[in-house]
Amino acid sequence: MMQTEAKSNMMMPEETAELRQLYADFEAEHLHPLWTQIDDLMPVVPAPKAVPHVWRWSRLFPLAQRSGDLVPVGRGGERRAIGLANPGLGGKAYVTPTLWAAIQYLGPRETAPEHRHAQNAFRFVVEGEGVWTVVNGDPVRMSRGDFLLTPGWHFHGHHNDTDQPMAWIDGLDIPFSYQNDVGFFEFGADRVTDYATPRYSRGERLWCHPGLRPLSGLANTVSSPIGAYRWEHTDRALTEQLLLEEEGQPATVGQGHAAVRYINPTTGGDVMPTIRAEFHRLRPGVQTAGRREVGSSVFQVFEGQGAVVLNGTEHRLEKGDMFVVPSWVKWLLQAETGFDLFRFSDAPIIERLHFARSQVDEADR
Amino acid sequence: MMQTEAKSNMMMPEETAELRQLYADFEAEHLHPLWTQIDDLMPVVPAPKAVPHVWRWSRLFPLAQRSGDLVPVGRGGERRAIGLANPGLGGKAYVTPTLWAAIQYLGPRETAPEHRHAQNAFRFVVEGEGVWTVVNGDPVRMSRGDFLLTPGWHFHGHHNDTDQPMAWIDGLDIPFSYQNDVGFFEFGADRVTDYATPRYSRGERLWCHPGLRPLSGLANTVSSPIGAYRWEHTDRALTEQLLLEEEGQPATVGQGHAAVRYINPTTGGDVMPTIRAEFHRLRPGVQTAGRREVGSSVFQVFEGQGAVVLNGTEHRLEKGDMFVVPSWVKWLLQAETGFDLFRFSDAPIIERLHFARSQVDEADR
Amino acid sequence: MMQTEAKSNMMMPEETAELRQLYADFEAEHLHPLWTQIDDLMPVVPAPKAVPHVWRWSRLFPLAQRSGDLVPVGRGGERRAIGLANPGLGGKAYVTPTLWAAIQYLGPRETAPEHRHAQNAFRFVVEGEGVWTVVNGDPVRMSRGDFLLTPGWHFHGHHNDTDQPMAWIDGLDIPFSYQNDVGFFEFGADRVTDYATPRYSRGERLWCHPGLRPLSGLANTVSSPIGAYRWEHTDRALTEQLLLEEEGQPATVGQGHAAVRYINPTTGGDVMPTIRAEFHRLRPGVQTAGRREVGSSVFQVFEGQGAVVLNGTEHRLEKGDMFVVPSWVKWLLQAETGFDLFRFSDAPIIERLHFARSQVDEADR
Amino acid sequence: MMQTEAKSNMMMPEETAELRQLYADFEAEHLHPLWTQIDDLMPVVPAPKAVPHVWRWSRLFPLAQRSGDLVPVGRGGERRAIGLANPGLGGKAYVTPTLWAAIQYLGPRETAPEHRHAQNAFRFVVEGEGVWTVVNGDPVRMSRGDFLLTPGWHFHGHHNDTDQPMAWIDGLDIPFSYQNDVGFFEFGADRVTDYATPRYSRGERLWCHPGLRPLSGLANTVSSPIGAYRWEHTDRALTEQLLLEEEGQPATVGQGHAAVRYINPTTGGDVMPTIRAEFHRLRPGVQTAGRREVGSSVFQVFEGQGAVVLNGTEHRLEKGDMFVVPSWVKWLLQAETGFDLFRFSDAPIIERLHFARSQVDEADR
Repeated sequence: MMQTEAKSNMMMPEETAELRQLYADFEAEHLHPLWTQIDDLMPVVPAPKAVPHVWRWSRLFPLAQRSGDLVPVGRGGERRAIGLANPGLGGKAYVTPTLWAAIQYLGPRETAPEHRHAQNAFRFVVEGEGVWTVVNGDPVRMSRGDFLLTPGWHFHGHHNDTDQPMAWIDGLDIPFSYQNDVGFFEFGADRVTDYATPRYSRGERLWCHPGLRPLSGLANTVSSPIGAYRWEHTDRALTEQLLLEEEGQPATVGQGHAAVRYINPTTGGDVMPTIRAEFHRLRPGVQTAGRREVGSSVFQVFEGQGAVVLNGTEHRLEKGDMFVVPSWVKWLLQAETGFDLFRFSDAPIIERLHFARSQVDEADR
Repeated sequence: MMQTEAKSNMMMPEETAELRQLYADFEAEHLHPLWTQIDDLMPVVPAPKAVPHVWRWSRLFPLAQRSGDLVPVGRGGERRAIGLANPGLGGKAYVTPTLWAAIQYLGPRETAPEHRHAQNAFRFVVEGEGVWTVVNGDPVRMSRGDFLLTPGWHFHGHHNDTDQPMAWIDGLDIPFSYQNDVGFFEFGADRVTDYATPRYSRGERLWCHPGLRPLSGLANTVSSPIGAYRWEHTDRALTEQLLLEEEGQPATVGQGHAAVRYINPTTGGDVMPTIRAEFHRLRPGVQTAGRREVGSSVFQVFEGQGAVVLNGTEHRLEKGDMFVVPSWVKWLLQAETGFDLFRFSDAPIIERLHFARSQVDEADR
Repeated sequence: MMQTEAKSNMMMPEETAELRQLYADFEAEHLHPLWTQIDDLMPVVPAPKAVPHVWRWSRLFPLAQRSGDLVPVGRGGERRAIGLANPGLGGKAYVTPTLWAAIQYLGPRETAPEHRHAQNAFRFVVEGEGVWTVVNGDPVRMSRGDFLLTPGWHFHGHHNDTDQPMAWIDGLDIPFSYQNDVGFFEFGADRVTDYATPRYSRGERLWCHPGLRPLSGLANTVSSPIGAYRWEHTDRALTEQLLLEEEGQPATVGQGHAAVRYINPTTGGDVMPTIRAEFHRLRPGVQTAGRREVGSSVFQVFEGQGAVVLNGTEHRLEKGDMFVVPSWVKWLLQAETGFDLFRFSDAPIIERLHFARSQVDEADR
Repeated sequence: MMQTEAKSNMMMPEETAELRQLYADFEAEHLHPLWTQIDDLMPVVPAPKAVPHVWRWSRLFPLAQRSGDLVPVGRGGERRAIGLANPGLGGKAYVTPTLWAAIQYLGPRETAPEHRHAQNAFRFVVEGEGVWTVVNGDPVRMSRGDFLLTPGWHFHGHHNDTDQPMAWIDGLDIPFSYQNDVGFFEFGADRVTDYATPRYSRGERLWCHPGLRPLSGLANTVSSPIGAYRWEHTDRALTEQLLLEEEGQPATVGQGHAAVRYINPTTGGDVMPTIRAEFHRLRPGVQTAGRREVGSSVFQVFEGQGAVVLNGTEHRLEKGDMFVVPSWVKWLLQAETGFDLFRFSDAPIIERLHFARSQVDEADR
């Protein structure tokens, strides 16, 4: 459907002294001609500077541990978080042009102080437990498989209630916010405001009843009021999809491929205005169709072995491994064992601004 | 705020022969003057013909049983349903101008045949179990406390899998549909298409995971894809609200008054386009504020003893009793024991057409 | 697609003494069985009690004139409006189950006092000029071809600034409001609050600039902020559509059939929450396809000669004639000359509640 | 409300050999610590790299003319457009992080070939006439004061029908598209597909009738179907606002400050998903309140003399001058004469992603 050839440059004039002078005068006036840059600025299909890349949990976690030994957590630096820097994005800790992904580490009995920012944030726990994140005063337990929200401008801090360290991943829209100058930041309490360690947060107790909405919460909210999406629900939802598939019912997104999206129960839409989060489960042996999408994603393997193929290159994956799929990069998953993956992306940005497109390889359908 | 005096009729002319002739000529041409009818047609506040009324479960259920003995269920009559006829609405089986409410009864091993209609329907089970309703081929168990949907144009039939009869209440928008000529009806199978008796329907297995949405179900639906809202979830949600209230958290809709709305998880809005459904729980001794609302409601007591005060008249209530609150009638609830009530109303009609108003008595706040 | 046979009544039991007693006991408890009424209450396709009917302007206008002689306009009766009473709707001044249509008449120098009501109202002027309607204090000129709004709860009164009488038609949602008990009413000034006679109302001056919205008016409004939709714009829009059609462009709704919908510029949707208004223009000789729609409409001929065929019966039409199309009645228009018609309907009610369906005769496409 | 002090770095550890090794190991694994970058990445208030800047029409236009002599227009370079490069944005032709602004120049009888791209584009004409832009086959006249759309993925080319050159400004979301990898591009015809020079485009003839919508155009569109917003309408809307203000009516956005937003008539919202456009008119002597907003804007003076104050620095302005207001920069306008300005911004991006905030100086209200 689309042309893939580079634009020819029939318009390019001969480089004369006059032209050089013109270009110099442009420069002096803070001007740039489109005609010399159009191939770069307006490619035939997205040509991301970000590249596909895999980060290994076996490397990430030990580095986080060493940070725990060497770097105190506290006011100023705020978080012991180590950001994944896409090799194509010039040394900034941007995993994609819009998204930030980091491993965060909290030692035994440590507290990360409270603050709030316009940036939207979440956490996902690939292993461990014992930390509570306190979001607008509501203590939220963090355990393996849980997906946790701290939407924009919600105060939040964390504390480790145990004698063991804990690590998890953070996702934020820091690059988008930085690039587009939308960020605000405010310090809160130096300690968290509530050290209680309840099994379920107040947000969950109000909102996590399927198909029910409290009458005290009828106003829609920009982001989800649910602080924690528990593994027990995610696992059960995926299990049921695969069982229904076995019964011949249309429940999965592809043969042997169960998937859920985390949503804001007040709208049925994405959990936060800039970030989509999903969980995918493949049966052993399943390979998904090759797919390109506008917008960028990050995956983390939660359980199992398999591989991802990114623009034709296969990467073997183990538990905890993370990889990035830049815009319009062709990707497919291969499950060796049962294969569970957490995914987050900037899809709400792409969709709300009507730039969404996708392409599935015919051969792979 | 609003005038309550009747409109004076300064405009009324003397009744002359000429005027009588004019009115006769109007009649002949199928015309009516506004000036003689405006007080009736355009009241200062809603003046419903429907009246507040209470139906006793102790009367309803035995009549339903006698119907079970005398009237077969089957094709043609379709359902052994007995409609509540508001005494103000001229002998039609309309509980309000928009809503139908009925007690339906199915004997041991009976089947009510499949059909579909544009009218939206639900069932609520105040006691009993053993019937499955099959909605678009998906068998849905019916048990005490469950709220069950058959949205417009979904095929549905019921069968009783036990040797005991079972009764429940039906709610539909039959009066609205009839009045506004929007109804369509089509017969389906004479027996239900699936006699399986699973504990959970396929819709529940796909959709009843809090905060999660299947990737195979990303298109929003006009009505909820959930076939059954289970009592276990409703009860837990209400219990948590009251516990949170005890902890000093803002979780209830009024002091000692927990409440949930049943919603369509694809939108966060009402389960069906014309009918809202809620469940209310009062602590013993609680009295709600007197309240008037545009639009009409029906309640059924699920558990406990108490009373409703309708336009100043108190009615004592027991389990299973049903009452109707016509538009702009002042109502308040009084709980003697813990008091659980199911409620449905035409609020989505009122709100979508921007006629909603309400008034809470200052004295009762 | 749908069955047209009546439901057989296989379920009907023999009429025994016991059954008669059961039915009597139902009656005593304000109950009605569904099985005896289902054919009436839940028809296979809409079976409106309202019937197709034509009212002749040649009869309406003289009766309005006689009212002008015999009936004063003023506080109490409020308006000298004569409502069209659908012959099928039992003598009420309902043109359809949802809509009111009337001819209103104001003598030289008369004033109709100000009031407001929850009911939504509009006026359409088939001939004449000289009256200003004052809506929330904004005087709006009324002239031939203009469509004028008084949305719910806007104060409004009219005054005739000339020595000639003037008549126009009113459309309201009185039957819907009355049936569903949503109406409120409040008197305003006995005279209009502003006797100025500007050519254009303030609402028009702010809002009637195509594609532009005042920065002082960024909040969306339930109903349109435009008080008058002028004939000059309607006529030009229709003229352009037919010219574009001649140029081979896709601009008309059918061959030789131009049409516009009046909209709320803050949303692009209908002018008011319960009433849709459109204007249709047919070239001479054009016949539209036979069409059925859920919901009811009223038309008035604005100019030209032609006919409407309603469920197979042809009615010849002249300027000013009005006719009603009840729900699911098949209708088509035939233009003898160029044929201009104003139309209003309850389509927003039908669509917002998701009852919309339509059917176009294959043979007529 | 917000803290303005920089974050202290209490968390910063002593720089030991071990720490240096840790940081080196981060680097090797494509990781970056948050704690060293948080002040930059997450500022207390937006700290744009883009700076306020003014480009003078008296410099822009002669440079565009010289380009006309030296650089042919045609396939490959596509457009003789010279982009404004914000001095703070590192030499890229980005006027803000999201927006592109350029002066485009077309010589006598020249044609700019057809193409389409996912990027949204508009033109605004500060002077001249004689060019038609052909958008999806619809020729659209360009004249002084007109605002013209070429929404994403619409084919478009331009041709100059006269013996005079013509210049105008272009606005696009190129930086946003480039940054976020959402761009697609496709060549069209080397010449425009229709050299007709109608006074009004087909889109205008269908859609530019205030308050009216063609029945052939009931589906909402992502971007406006109007190809040209004419000066005659903009001027009249602003004139009426100031007249209404004189009459004591609430019509302007501030005393002596009239303003309109260009909208998509199918929704009442912005013309395109990423770009907002407005026109502002100040009476002589008026000064607006100092204002900060999240998101970036570009203005062009259309007529009159005055000044803009950007973060406290005053810049005198003449006709055609352009200036940029980066995010959260305080700006106010001062009108010496009557002062007309065109404005465009990335507000739809900011608002759809819920990052909008603004602050008006109390002293200036």
